[in-house]
Amino acid sequence: MKYLFKNALTVTMDQEMKVLKNIDVLVENDRIKALGSIKPEECENAVEIDCTKKILMPGLINGHTHVPMTLLRNYADDMNLQTWLFDYIFPAEDKLTGEDVYWGTMLGIMEMLATGTTCFIDMYFYMDHMAKAVEDSGIRAQLSRGMTSNEKGPDFSQNKSLNECIDFYLKWNGAADGRIMGAFAPHAIYTCSPEYIRAIRDAAEKYGAPIHIHLDETRVEHQDSLKNFGKTPAKHLYDLGVFDLKTIAAHCVWIDDEDIELLKEKDVTIAHNPGSNLKLASGIAPIPKVMDSGINIILGTDGASSNNNLDMFEEINLASLIHKGANLDPLLINAGEALKMATVNGGKALGREDLGVIKEGFKADLILIDVDKVHSKPLHNPVSALAYSIKGSDVCLAMVDGRILYENGEFKTIDKEKVLYNIEKICDRIF
Amino acid sequence: MKYLFKNALTVTMDQEMKVLKNIDVLVENDRIKALGSIKPEECENAVEIDCTKKILMPGLINGHTHVPMTLLRNYADDMNLQTWLFDYIFPAEDKLTGEDVYWGTMLGIMEMLATGTTCFIDMYFYMDHMAKAVEDSGIRAQLSRGMTSNEKGPDFSQNKSLNECIDFYLKWNGAADGRIMGAFAPHAIYTCSPEYIRAIRDAAEKYGAPIHIHLDETRVEHQDSLKNFGKTPAKHLYDLGVFDLKTIAAHCVWIDDEDIELLKEKDVTIAHNPGSNLKLASGIAPIPKVMDSGINIILGTDGASSNNNLDMFEEINLASLIHKGANLDPLLINAGEALKMATVNGGKALGREDLGVIKEGFKADLILIDVDKVHSKPLHNPVSALAYSIKGSDVCLAMVDGRILYENGEFKTIDKEKVLYNIEKICDRIF
Repeated sequence: MKYLFKNALTVTMDQEMKVLKNIDVLVENDRIKALGSIKPEECENAVEIDCTKKILMPGLINGHTHVPMTLLRNYADDMNLQTWLFDYIFPAEDKLTGEDVYWGTMLGIMEMLATGTTCFIDMYFYMDHMAKAVEDSGIRAQLSRGMTSNEKGPDFSQNKSLNECIDFYLKWNGAADGRIMGAFAPHAIYTCSPEYIRAIRDAAEKYGAPIHIHLDETRVEHQDSLKNFGKTPAKHLYDLGVFDLKTIAAHCVWIDDEDIELLKEKDVTIAHNPGSNLKLASGIAPIPKVMDSGINIILGTDGASSNNNLDMFEEINLASLIHKGANLDPLLINAGEALKMATVNGGKALGREDLGVIKEGFKADLILIDVDKVHSKPLHNPVSALAYSIKGSDVCLAMVDGRILYENGEFKTIDKEKVLYNIEKICDRIF
Repeated sequence: MKYLFKNALTVTMDQEMKVLKNIDVLVENDRIKALGSIKPEECENAVEIDCTKKILMPGLINGHTHVPMTLLRNYADDMNLQTWLFDYIFPAEDKLTGEDVYWGTMLGIMEMLATGTTCFIDMYFYMDHMAKAVEDSGIRAQLSRGMTSNEKGPDFSQNKSLNECIDFYLKWNGAADGRIMGAFAPHAIYTCSPEYIRAIRDAAEKYGAPIHIHLDETRVEHQDSLKNFGKTPAKHLYDLGVFDLKTIAAHCVWIDDEDIELLKEKDVTIAHNPGSNLKLASGIAPIPKVMDSGINIILGTDGASSNNNLDMFEEINLASLIHKGANLDPLLINAGEALKMATVNGGKALGREDLGVIKEGFKADLILIDVDKVHSKPLHNPVSALAYSIKGSDVCLAMVDGRILYENGEFKTIDKEKVLYNIEKICDRIF
């Protein structure tokens, strides 16, 4: 299959943040074949997509989320973390079945595609059902089974969650034409004993899997770590050898300067979740310092129950706004930097040299944004517009692996009515 | 003219934050005539509007903006305040004509109506042209000529701006069926001498006009005031007698506890502009403390060049997020409180007992929001959804004074193509 994007205002997201006016981009099968001036014979039999008054850019990569939590959207807000978690979220999650997780994932995938996300990095449970939703929908994802245990070990060979995690990894890593990637996810240092984290880390090393973990999200986590382990959460994981593996550490709100050095030394990626960190009152992560260190930063929405949506354009906007305000410096996290966190940096976090940039040979994970809207006019600077004016609802096309999954309100691979019918049934049962 | 909103999920924005399911709301001429169970004979000849799967709520009131600055949207971002203002904004504004301001206002009004704003509070120049745009479009606004002068006085009877301000007030206050309200706007303490502020204040008192002013927006303004006047900006205006008149003070980022007491004593309304304050790195206003004091707080977008849009749903979202995160308290500024800042509190700020609530006798300034969208499902709590999930683009109808101005992408009183044609011409000329 071939597609020719004609006359696109193209934000490439390459190193130089090139913005190319009125160029053509040719997609062949799952890859970007050519851009710029393309020979007519190359375009033969290509389906043409008119991109007049539209921005073409790489699809967004949601760096940390729990997609099935869309089922809990707007269910519990404006309350203390403990009340939220123990009185609302956990009891509701206890009632979820694998099938519920499938439909919740499908709902989230529809929202993500419609707002420009073509890949997401997730940690949850009933992972076979999540993977099935990713496979069916055509989106791309890194998936991991979140694991919690305070067992002391040392033998975790009979641990149910870890065995589930290994089975899942072996079954699904590289599946769906490579759209599904696996990872090992010790949930956090306050939900996993050091021995358990070590066992997960060793298993991950054995199977060549990367790590996805929550790190230093709240002040309580930070203080408890100092009390219990005599060191910061980051140092604790460093000493456990977790960071010797390719790691995505979500949140990192309370990390200090020494932690930043450790994370940089081990090339850990930090997933910044500004919306969730604000809403749950976790705080404001020291992202400008992290950026100065050269650490790879990606952006995530976290789950829809602490956000309350999966719209990455909102996170881009928040990331470009809050650090300026909190640090009284208007030069911090400019529009281009925030956009990189949501695109090319996500590719790096996944160890992929072919995601997040519009470039020959890269994966055809692309989105089109309609800028013929009142709120995008005048369009003085497209990069500024993407960070400061454009809404997720301006996305009019999402392509993954060279396949159009969403176009002008229509989902090509998902039966929207069926998903919504099932969501309603699930909510009637659970709430 | 009569309209019957049928089966609406109605967020009334009254004191108790009542959410009414499947009720009918009858509008007759410019007012809400009845809600709840309405006698069939009352509804005779009413145009029915089906509100299934829609939220009906009061139109949003943008508490502080400079609407013609839509012309400068995405033109200058991610730079120091001085560079932004003196190298980009002021030189561009110097080239504006009255006609440019008319078309820039029209562009902004389109954006506001399409995102649910039915009234705005503005300070700019070429006010006759702005007023004409408000009159033509059918929206509601409080308008004021922003005044700057470092003249020492005492005689300002020949001052051009002040005379323009007075003429404008006499001509336009109460015009367009009362949709236009006037105010007097000394720009700020750092652009107006104390004598000039005093002269404006006295003229406002003479004509019975309220005040709209920027107050304590930046740390520099705060420190300069301490240096130049030996007191805070708020105390400076208090001593000049400004607050003896009905006042809207925009920003108030750097006010201290004593300032809060002064502002409360004088019943000043504070216009909180979270997006602009973050983007320009002014800081985070102490809104939770202000709220505890009982001061009336409204929300504003500020101009589109420091935001970069006029979408009040984004400000509601920011107001409900940033104070939680900055103060590490998830109970601060809940969804309902943020929504009040954008509706009923705006009515109070304007001295209107008939704006910002869905209630018999109130003005029919109403919006409909489509919640049959993927990102609004499941709709566990409509009030949370309005603050945390819903986008401005979900607005499908905006009514002002009982007249539908926007419906499903169509502007009823504005020739969209003509506005966009003129915007393009202006931008070609200026930039």
